[in-house]
Amino acid sequence: MELTQADRQHLDKSKQDTGSLGNTDVASLLQHNNGKWRAFCVCSDLLPAEDGEEATKHFLQELVNILLAYINKSLKRSSKVLDFHYPHQLKEGLEGFSLELPDQPDNLEQLLVDCRDTLKYGVKTGHPRFFNQLSTGLDIIGLAGEWLTSTANTNMFTYEISPVFILMEEVVLRKMHSIIGWPEEDGDGIFCPGGTMSNLYSVLLARFHLFPVVKTHGMSAIPRLALFTSAHVHNLIIVSSTLSGGKMISSELNSSIETAKSKGLVPFYVNATAGTTVYGAFDPLNEIADICKHHGLWMHVDAAWGGGLLLSNKHRVKLQGIERAHSVTWNPHKMMGVPLQCSTILVKKKGLLQECNQLCAEYLFQPDKHYDVSYDTGDKSIQCGRHVDVFKLWLMWKAKGSEGFEAQINHCLENAEYLYYKLKRRSDFQLVFKGKPEHSNVCFWYLPKRLQSILPSPERDRELHMVAPKIKTKMMEEGFTMIGYQPLEDKVNFFRCVFSNPATQREDVDFLIDEIVRLGCEL
Amino acid sequence: MELTQADRQHLDKSKQDTGSLGNTDVASLLQHNNGKWRAFCVCSDLLPAEDGEEATKHFLQELVNILLAYINKSLKRSSKVLDFHYPHQLKEGLEGFSLELPDQPDNLEQLLVDCRDTLKYGVKTGHPRFFNQLSTGLDIIGLAGEWLTSTANTNMFTYEISPVFILMEEVVLRKMHSIIGWPEEDGDGIFCPGGTMSNLYSVLLARFHLFPVVKTHGMSAIPRLALFTSAHVHNLIIVSSTLSGGKMISSELNSSIETAKSKGLVPFYVNATAGTTVYGAFDPLNEIADICKHHGLWMHVDAAWGGGLLLSNKHRVKLQGIERAHSVTWNPHKMMGVPLQCSTILVKKKGLLQECNQLCAEYLFQPDKHYDVSYDTGDKSIQCGRHVDVFKLWLMWKAKGSEGFEAQINHCLENAEYLYYKLKRRSDFQLVFKGKPEHSNVCFWYLPKRLQSILPSPERDRELHMVAPKIKTKMMEEGFTMIGYQPLEDKVNFFRCVFSNPATQREDVDFLIDEIVRLGCEL
Repeated sequence: MELTQADRQHLDKSKQDTGSLGNTDVASLLQHNNGKWRAFCVCSDLLPAEDGEEATKHFLQELVNILLAYINKSLKRSSKVLDFHYPHQLKEGLEGFSLELPDQPDNLEQLLVDCRDTLKYGVKTGHPRFFNQLSTGLDIIGLAGEWLTSTANTNMFTYEISPVFILMEEVVLRKMHSIIGWPEEDGDGIFCPGGTMSNLYSVLLARFHLFPVVKTHGMSAIPRLALFTSAHVHNLIIVSSTLSGGKMISSELNSSIETAKSKGLVPFYVNATAGTTVYGAFDPLNEIADICKHHGLWMHVDAAWGGGLLLSNKHRVKLQGIERAHSVTWNPHKMMGVPLQCSTILVKKKGLLQECNQLCAEYLFQPDKHYDVSYDTGDKSIQCGRHVDVFKLWLMWKAKGSEGFEAQINHCLENAEYLYYKLKRRSDFQLVFKGKPEHSNVCFWYLPKRLQSILPSPERDRELHMVAPKIKTKMMEEGFTMIGYQPLEDKVNFFRCVFSNPATQREDVDFLIDEIVRLGCEL
Repeated sequence: MELTQADRQHLDKSKQDTGSLGNTDVASLLQHNNGKWRAFCVCSDLLPAEDGEEATKHFLQELVNILLAYINKSLKRSSKVLDFHYPHQLKEGLEGFSLELPDQPDNLEQLLVDCRDTLKYGVKTGHPRFFNQLSTGLDIIGLAGEWLTSTANTNMFTYEISPVFILMEEVVLRKMHSIIGWPEEDGDGIFCPGGTMSNLYSVLLARFHLFPVVKTHGMSAIPRLALFTSAHVHNLIIVSSTLSGGKMISSELNSSIETAKSKGLVPFYVNATAGTTVYGAFDPLNEIADICKHHGLWMHVDAAWGGGLLLSNKHRVKLQGIERAHSVTWNPHKMMGVPLQCSTILVKKKGLLQECNQLCAEYLFQPDKHYDVSYDTGDKSIQCGRHVDVFKLWLMWKAKGSEGFEAQINHCLENAEYLYYKLKRRSDFQLVFKGKPEHSNVCFWYLPKRLQSILPSPERDRELHMVAPKIKTKMMEEGFTMIGYQPLEDKVNFFRCVFSNPATQREDVDFLIDEIVRLGCEL
């Protein structure tokens, strides 16, 4: 579609006058030449430009059309999950998609093309056959929540700049406390950027609770501390203890604590995991709570992955004892399917978060404001300002109700069970564990023909170790599905399938198995 | 608009059949009764529901219409900045806006109403008369970037799940390194959630650089360390040193270092601030770099707020010496007007970030993948997974070019200068500092009539201290503009005006002054 001669003269004149389009020109272009305007407009024609309303509307509308097309594609089984390119390919610029940053502005046409390309070369994490991460799926309501959040573009800092979001945080956290089972008079918390940060908060809180002097006098004013966790934890936490099949053994925890004491360390904190990253194992929370009580230790439960199961009457039994924890990490962006990022640290004792982290900088938090300044939550945080992560969860909760979350989580665990029984019956697959999965993690090896007849041995293991990476390479290059693999302790590379996408159905599980066989049988 | 009798029967039947609408019904409702469908649909009618495409499109489209209306209103001077309500009012539920979370799903109609209400009771941080925070404005391209980011819904964890964003991060960070003035062979970094986290990274890096043993043996394996900063810093950093009018005095820094040494502490780190939060002051970076070099200390520059000035040929002189820093905090979500959140920690020495923070958990980062795993940046981070914060900045850079950022930043500083000269001429206002502002911060007192005739004294100060909070209360209740105040050291409550919104013009500055006088003259 070409511009008329008159259009061109009009535009040239306007560009000379203003350095870009004058806004009247945008309006007439929009009216008469829908579609061409983008190539002649730059971002300075958008709001806040005077009369930039129409161009803004058209630009955002065209972006939304691109996003809608992407959403449809993401949720369609006939689409690929990804169109893989190596880093050097993307960096060289594919079909005009250049990552380099210019000194001069690009026009809106080019920006829309860039948006399309960015999505094209990315990974469709909402695709029903994307099994690669703990966070999968594309919840439309959650997405709507994120679009609104970014439009509101504010900060969880004070009530004065985020009145609604601050109150929503209170409401959602209270709901989560009651689901954990804390009495109404207890319960505090904060949304923060990811499970590792949540766990960091819990360590800071436990340390401060035991030795408040650490805040003013630092680490050298307190004895050497010891914290305990199983070896299968979520990144951050570092020290000691024992496990079997992913679970903490409470008797061994007890003796680890005694050993630490005998070495002159001061035990102060135990991290129990509810849903480990790879196996999806749940530590025995009540036993650990007993030990913590006996030794006077802070009990933290990392339920980043497993927390969602609390919403299921069928599965919440796996977290029995969580109500005895002093603090809990729970990431709604995992099992609850909330868009990234949405993570919480929940604390039983009210006020501790504020006491531990506040710096009382009056230049940030003025005590003489006209509303109740306890709603200025910025001083609870180690971040000062925080991104608004609560709204999408709040909106999803309104949309689904607790019952909707329950149904969605049960569905994911049913998929895991389906995969488990399917693999159990086959001789070309081997489960990493005999038992039924507790969470939606299913860990398994695929045995190509030539390995099926070899008895387990170090040689076979060396061969088997190469199988998953080879299949994954082909899988990514072809792009129809995606699943992760890893070694763990004495176990060579195995696949871990996780289900958190409500869009995934049994046919997708069947597809995954067939695809692994197709790609791997000749290896 | 009412449904026909036939519609109703149709719907009732369908609800009985499926528990909600069957999708065929949604399609026909959409076709024939546009507008009514929302009240009969719930989120389970949206994708991934079979044939949920139309309902999804309509729902998101209606949301976008709400967002577009909000955007227009936000940037219109005739709109209020906020419609203030006290916490108890919002919690009680205003005109049906209830924050409480249900067990049963709400329908899509209700969700759209909730979205409208959430925006209605919030604060328009993009409004040209919102002067309350360092992050203001609503950049349409940045917003488009955020909408796309949330639709892509992935994680800055590995190249395999974020190929495009990972490479964009590299490109944008490289651009920022070159703007700082680091040689091409240097430069590393990461996007992280806010300036305080960026500063935390710098402390961890400096400590690890000096004492790598801290990573494996902890704080008790290293001597007591001392870090130095001015008293006007950005939240986090805690210890010692001196200032005047917000600037660090380098001779006093030197003697603080000597004193720390004489007490047996090991100085290791100096934080210089480029653009303090309240005054917008710049520490003398070259002098501080000399001292750091002399003592062998890590030099960090917190340019969270001031970093944007590096893009201005006119103003970058204020950061001279920043190229000598070992690390820099720079928040594009402040002076560059990028939507929240967008913050970086930039590190001169390549590889240190990875060495310092990596845990080499093979269950997270597999070394045997088919692409160059140095692009799996998750192990550089203390967070493990990270929100994608780079795309909106990348897109804005494409849209504006470096020159567009320069123009926008110069404009903000011109507004500050305009306000400064305006206040300087008036007797009812008093500037907190004599000199022209270095950044876009302008700090001042307003003197109501009865205080104008009183000579400065402790009594007058006590009265003056009450003025800003009283004006702020009225200002928020009326909602036409918003500006922050705070006391600082020996100075009683004063207003701080900051400019980071390119939409703000001189008429808005005039309005602010008139509004303060209108609300405060009788106090």
